[in-house]
Amino acid sequence: MSKSEEEDIATSTSSQSLQVPGKETEASVFAKRKEKEMKKETRLGISAKKEEDFASWYSQACRFGELITLSDTKGLYILEPTATKIWNILRSYMDAELEKLGNVEEKKFPMLIKRDSLEKEKDHIEGFKPEVAWVTRAGEHDLPTPYALRPTSETIIYPYFRNRIRTHRDLPMKVNQWVNVVRWEVSDPIPLIRGREFDWQEGHSAFATKEEADEEVLEVLNVYSRVYEDLLAVPVIKGRKSEKEKFAGADYTTSVEAFVPATGRGVQAATSHCLGQNFAKMFEITFEDKEVRKDKKKSMVWQNSWGLSTRSIGVMVMTHGDDKGLVLPPKVARYQVVVIPVPFKGADTKRISRECQAVRASLQGAGVRAVVDERENYACGWKYADWEMKGVPLRIELGPRDLEKNQVRVARRDTGAKMDVLRVDLVERVKDLLEEIQRDLYAVAKRRLEESIQKVETWDEFKEALRGKKLVLAPWCDEVEVENGVKENTKGENEAGAKTLCTPFEQPELREDTLCFASGKPAKKWTYWGRSY
Amino acid sequence: MSKSEEEDIATSTSSQSLQVPGKETEASVFAKRKEKEMKKETRLGISAKKEEDFASWYSQACRFGELITLSDTKGLYILEPTATKIWNILRSYMDAELEKLGNVEEKKFPMLIKRDSLEKEKDHIEGFKPEVAWVTRAGEHDLPTPYALRPTSETIIYPYFRNRIRTHRDLPMKVNQWVNVVRWEVSDPIPLIRGREFDWQEGHSAFATKEEADEEVLEVLNVYSRVYEDLLAVPVIKGRKSEKEKFAGADYTTSVEAFVPATGRGVQAATSHCLGQNFAKMFEITFEDKEVRKDKKKSMVWQNSWGLSTRSIGVMVMTHGDDKGLVLPPKVARYQVVVIPVPFKGADTKRISRECQAVRASLQGAGVRAVVDERENYACGWKYADWEMKGVPLRIELGPRDLEKNQVRVARRDTGAKMDVLRVDLVERVKDLLEEIQRDLYAVAKRRLEESIQKVETWDEFKEALRGKKLVLAPWCDEVEVENGVKENTKGENEAGAKTLCTPFEQPELREDTLCFASGKPAKKWTYWGRSY
Repeated sequence: MSKSEEEDIATSTSSQSLQVPGKETEASVFAKRKEKEMKKETRLGISAKKEEDFASWYSQACRFGELITLSDTKGLYILEPTATKIWNILRSYMDAELEKLGNVEEKKFPMLIKRDSLEKEKDHIEGFKPEVAWVTRAGEHDLPTPYALRPTSETIIYPYFRNRIRTHRDLPMKVNQWVNVVRWEVSDPIPLIRGREFDWQEGHSAFATKEEADEEVLEVLNVYSRVYEDLLAVPVIKGRKSEKEKFAGADYTTSVEAFVPATGRGVQAATSHCLGQNFAKMFEITFEDKEVRKDKKKSMVWQNSWGLSTRSIGVMVMTHGDDKGLVLPPKVARYQVVVIPVPFKGADTKRISRECQAVRASLQGAGVRAVVDERENYACGWKYADWEMKGVPLRIELGPRDLEKNQVRVARRDTGAKMDVLRVDLVERVKDLLEEIQRDLYAVAKRRLEESIQKVETWDEFKEALRGKKLVLAPWCDEVEVENGVKENTKGENEAGAKTLCTPFEQPELREDTLCFASGKPAKKWTYWGRSY
Repeated sequence: MSKSEEEDIATSTSSQSLQVPGKETEASVFAKRKEKEMKKETRLGISAKKEEDFASWYSQACRFGELITLSDTKGLYILEPTATKIWNILRSYMDAELEKLGNVEEKKFPMLIKRDSLEKEKDHIEGFKPEVAWVTRAGEHDLPTPYALRPTSETIIYPYFRNRIRTHRDLPMKVNQWVNVVRWEVSDPIPLIRGREFDWQEGHSAFATKEEADEEVLEVLNVYSRVYEDLLAVPVIKGRKSEKEKFAGADYTTSVEAFVPATGRGVQAATSHCLGQNFAKMFEITFEDKEVRKDKKKSMVWQNSWGLSTRSIGVMVMTHGDDKGLVLPPKVARYQVVVIPVPFKGADTKRISRECQAVRASLQGAGVRAVVDERENYACGWKYADWEMKGVPLRIELGPRDLEKNQVRVARRDTGAKMDVLRVDLVERVKDLLEEIQRDLYAVAKRRLEESIQKVETWDEFKEALRGKKLVLAPWCDEVEVENGVKENTKGENEAGAKTLCTPFEQPELREDTLCFASGKPAKKWTYWGRSY
């Protein structure tokens, strides 16, 4: 990704200037329209093809579609309104879902963690050490102890749990916060997918029993699955991570995994961890149980943590975007409909503008997020391409002939289908279409995901499937050394090796004599493998 | 404040344990009720009096009222659900108000600023240098260039403005972000009022003309004024800061100022700055104007920035809180009503509980945020005091006698007034009462503010008024040296000197021969003075 990312930075200035026609007068704009229509492809930016150069395509789609802007530092991104809107919608949805889970309280903890605290849980700090950013100075002075910028907040929240939890009546304790975190990645950053700072929600809970903790892990995973499938229209696979891939400090990690057919790579979409009593031991989080234990010791809590980040927006782009740019699912689109006046020469432009505003108003009145593009210094064709790049689900064109017939022209972003709709039917039709697009985006992505899955049983089949960019489902002996071996043996010149993505909860039947595709030992489970983001 | 803050930390553990009755069985709870009622005062925490030891009182009110919790680092606080709820409500309100201002776009910029960028505007860096926290290491390595944690984001947003603004068509450009900032204060922290990390919204805008910038400064200030007066029920004074007190790098700063009669101190509640072209020059933010300038140079933009932080929650506490704890204005209260079952001995507790839930459900159905306190291990009296400490505007008590009469007992947090209300009237009555409380809180605070204002014309009157904890309005020559002198000459052993709070937009008449209270030179304006937070 590094080469294309650099290249993108180099071209970003020129691409921006393309969006501003400069000294052209309004009169000359009309005259040049036809010429512009022809130049549309070259003027409007996305040069890379999703199937040919995915990395460049993705970066361009995110930037030219105005989802993010690059900053002056590698891996630090600026979220544009299209992205903040999606994130706010996900947040509202999640907050409502967490409320249903019962007593998840929104709190907010400091982002600075004292070194001692961060280093308390051995596995945890081992996992995060390489990417922790340290604050060592304030003003002109060195700090007596350095502070870590939270890469995640277990070690700042659990001392609080320790103080707050006294008896079984304080349990379960569930908190959630919406914050930014910093992971100073050494590998190449990818907008929204892997950055040095990102936004997420992180939940932390403590229970009296392991059973309750286990149950919540899955409840939360189901919420994440709904965020992806119902809002972002992205199909995901629910499963459990391998020992090698689990969260640093967890007993076990569950995840929802998405897949990008264009590159054949998996992408971890969100995780829900059972931390067991690992942190409880280190942070001494104990409680007086209902019945006093025979050894008279206090009981230790069982803990979970779980998070969903702005990476979800990147996964959405990878799933639905096409060579024209972003394709936004209606439920999360900042604008669901763009209305574009089409003022042919000699037409009553004022009336057309008025009618466009009337259409917008009636849609907004029905709860549809609509906008009119009245920019005078752009031609219609340019505007069409611009809003396609931005992924707005529906475009409405309104010109003199439409006015005459009391209709508008409606174009779908996802399929490109166009239809004439009578003004009287418009609001209902638009609402139906938005629902249809939401459903169709999911259905298409789901079909692609299913077509990508390939079951294999031998090493040769595995290598073949991997080459064919498949999501490989293989029987595995569940040994870390074998996973290490597979990674080593599939390493390419410029790409990391394949690893386990997850062991899906939905397991195909495993014949008793099935052997591990890689080690030849008896297989214990079917596991998804692939390269990943 | 430092002494009381330390003391508070020392007592926080014991105060928490007070909230957990420990090994008492449910049976013994009933038996001990009376005893507990008597001990209520000592059990429930807030020992300091607002009028006697304001600093301790404030810290206790914030902590025991469960607005914030102290962390292990001075100046870093944990926001509890009562605080995050207020902040979320303010955010929704502000977002809607900013939408009305037109085209304010929500974006999100990185929190890390390269040193070069931060140091570009000389006055700006001078103002912030002493309190900037620096990230110098990542993982095991020193970074090639240190990054500042944003104390405010001018220097990270304006390079972006520079790239984005090309012609007059790109103006005005207005962005807003909801983020955390870090200012490593050396002075003593006060929960929510002055911390080392806090949340805020910061807006940044660029205009083609000074007139548009000037206009927006006041539009935004009016939004802030409404947030305080309409939501938090806190009266504020709108005005302009002195040259000495303005934002580092601004042409001028306007603010809303609140006042705390108990201590006689002002508190800057929110600021809206006109940056003029200071940053535009340093960051080269230029645009092609509609008409080309004679000197053929590009024009420079005019800029504003404006912010409102979680300090607003602290100001609300200082304004309304009393010796029993927090007093929350209904519009921002997480819970507007708490329903408490009053199960006298021998009563049908199940039925009472059912009725309490029915009351809650009918209130919630009418959009009232209500909760039932069904904790079995606490006595009613304890619960009353607990919810009073938390500031919930209305308490509803429901016991067997109320059931008989189809009524409930309603108690106001602000006045302590109690009344019986028939169940059939309850929902409407509660809604009316909540509105009434909101209005009354504002009216009481407004009256106190007005009673605190003292107009003076001489140095002796000034000193006298300051001693009397008044908000001093004095004629001033508007010279920085004079302000420095006043500060120096009013410095106490343990308190900073008085300074200008603001020059109010609403100016009393200034007789032509009026002299400055401090310098004896001709006065130019009436200005508010005071010690401040």
